[in-house]
Amino acid sequence: MLNADLTPYTVTRVRDLAALRDAVRAFRAKGLSVGFVPTMGALHAGHLALVEHAKSLCDVVVVSIFVNPKQFAPHEDFGRYPRQEDRDAALLATVGCDLVYLPEADLMYPDVFASTVHVDGPALTLEGEFRPQFFDGVATVVLKLFNQVQPDVAVFGEKDYQQLQVVKTFVRDLDLPVRVVGLATVREADGLALSSRNAYLSADERRTAARLIVELNTVAEVVRSGGDRAAALQTATENLRAAGFGPVDYITLRDAETLAEAGPDTRALRLLAAAWLGKTRLIDNIAI
Amino acid sequence: MLNADLTPYTVTRVRDLAALRDAVRAFRAKGLSVGFVPTMGALHAGHLALVEHAKSLCDVVVVSIFVNPKQFAPHEDFGRYPRQEDRDAALLATVGCDLVYLPEADLMYPDVFASTVHVDGPALTLEGEFRPQFFDGVATVVLKLFNQVQPDVAVFGEKDYQQLQVVKTFVRDLDLPVRVVGLATVREADGLALSSRNAYLSADERRTAARLIVELNTVAEVVRSGGDRAAALQTATENLRAAGFGPVDYITLRDAETLAEAGPDTRALRLLAAAWLGKTRLIDNIAI
Repeated sequence: MLNADLTPYTVTRVRDLAALRDAVRAFRAKGLSVGFVPTMGALHAGHLALVEHAKSLCDVVVVSIFVNPKQFAPHEDFGRYPRQEDRDAALLATVGCDLVYLPEADLMYPDVFASTVHVDGPALTLEGEFRPQFFDGVATVVLKLFNQVQPDVAVFGEKDYQQLQVVKTFVRDLDLPVRVVGLATVREADGLALSSRNAYLSADERRTAARLIVELNTVAEVVRSGGDRAAALQTATENLRAAGFGPVDYITLRDAETLAEAGPDTRALRLLAAAWLGKTRLIDNIAI
Repeated sequence: MLNADLTPYTVTRVRDLAALRDAVRAFRAKGLSVGFVPTMGALHAGHLALVEHAKSLCDVVVVSIFVNPKQFAPHEDFGRYPRQEDRDAALLATVGCDLVYLPEADLMYPDVFASTVHVDGPALTLEGEFRPQFFDGVATVVLKLFNQVQPDVAVFGEKDYQQLQVVKTFVRDLDLPVRVVGLATVREADGLALSSRNAYLSADERRTAARLIVELNTVAEVVRSGGDRAAALQTATENLRAAGFGPVDYITLRDAETLAEAGPDTRALRLLAAAWLGKTRLIDNIAI
């Protein structure tokens, strides 16, 4: 699908808030419901599945493309994060996206910008430990985008499972009038979760990367059959290192909603992992 | 006005978010614009002026009454803050308020509540120094209330001038689709700014309290005539102490928008003060 001839399709692009609001107002005036998919661009089939799902829930779908500087630390990959607007817009046209919103960073964060949305609870652990400013940046930009687009429904991928829980948390806490929907992770044939950052992987690393979901599935099987959880997690870590992974930041069983450490009585479990492969940090997660 | 016979007037009260949203949806279905005045109750003529102003700008006006625990420190007056719902509702009916929203604290902040709106800039100084958790509490509850009511316009008093600037800041930063309007402070005959906390003052303190605006006006006159600002502020502080005030937390000239310390080139000036009178802390401010 990604390499199909895209010529017949176009999608309207807007770059400033006034134009966005005009366009959304025009949708509303026709009585159309509005779905929203926020992205950082570098779109792959996972993003397109989010758009298609939003389109199945709403009359029109708005997609934002914004590489949000507030969710990158100075040492992270903000500068080299892939940017490919024309290709992204062409792909979005193929899945029925009605409007692409491409805000400029200096309009999103003018010099006087002084506000932060901070989430405790599910944001404090895992990615929140390894990337301390990450979820403040995510929550602040997502709240801004929600207020800009004012959608009925917003669709997020479960690939970034913790992000999905953080968004659900502040949407609930701050009474935002939007329904947040999570969609299952889209995977390559060998199981690797689609990610814009997979583009950083060498051919060798790409082959090794698929080992991550293999190990997660193995742990899940042990948990489901009542086996030794700690031993399974330890083995998975060792297997990843032996396969060529660098440091495993975490591979851990959590409460699926709060992301607190799972105990024997935790009903809904989520298994989450983050690990380095060369200079690329991969994350993945599965339900149990 | 406050002691008039209120019997002929009533105003609808709602206590939960679903009922609020139903009522606002019914207004919207009729094509009515919605104004909003958030309060902590204990209403006085200053609040009623806000409602009347909102009513002049919008078709209907919603008033919330919620003594917000998040903007009180443990040692502050949350417990003894005056609560008088029936009287407040009767007063609101006399000025054309269409709906009173009285949310319960455990619905506003359930146990799992984990989100905070934090503002830097104008929130860091003055009240932000003396009451460190105050503006996080204000910003968080006002954002919640805005998302609950979804008004076109919200009206705030200039009595809490710094709060007004903080609200304007996060509304701008977070792209909230609401227009924030400030209204001039309503004063007693002797100039004392109306405040629910004036009820704490003894008869003696009440007479002394009027000295605050006298001193502010004197400083303003010196500034307007190009006199010695620092000397005027020092004299005002000494005069307040001599008149019977306790500690003067601040009396200071600021940039009217950013609340940064004013310099000789600051164009729009605001003079703000906070001072103790017995166990009551009074604040006031004026434009220059």
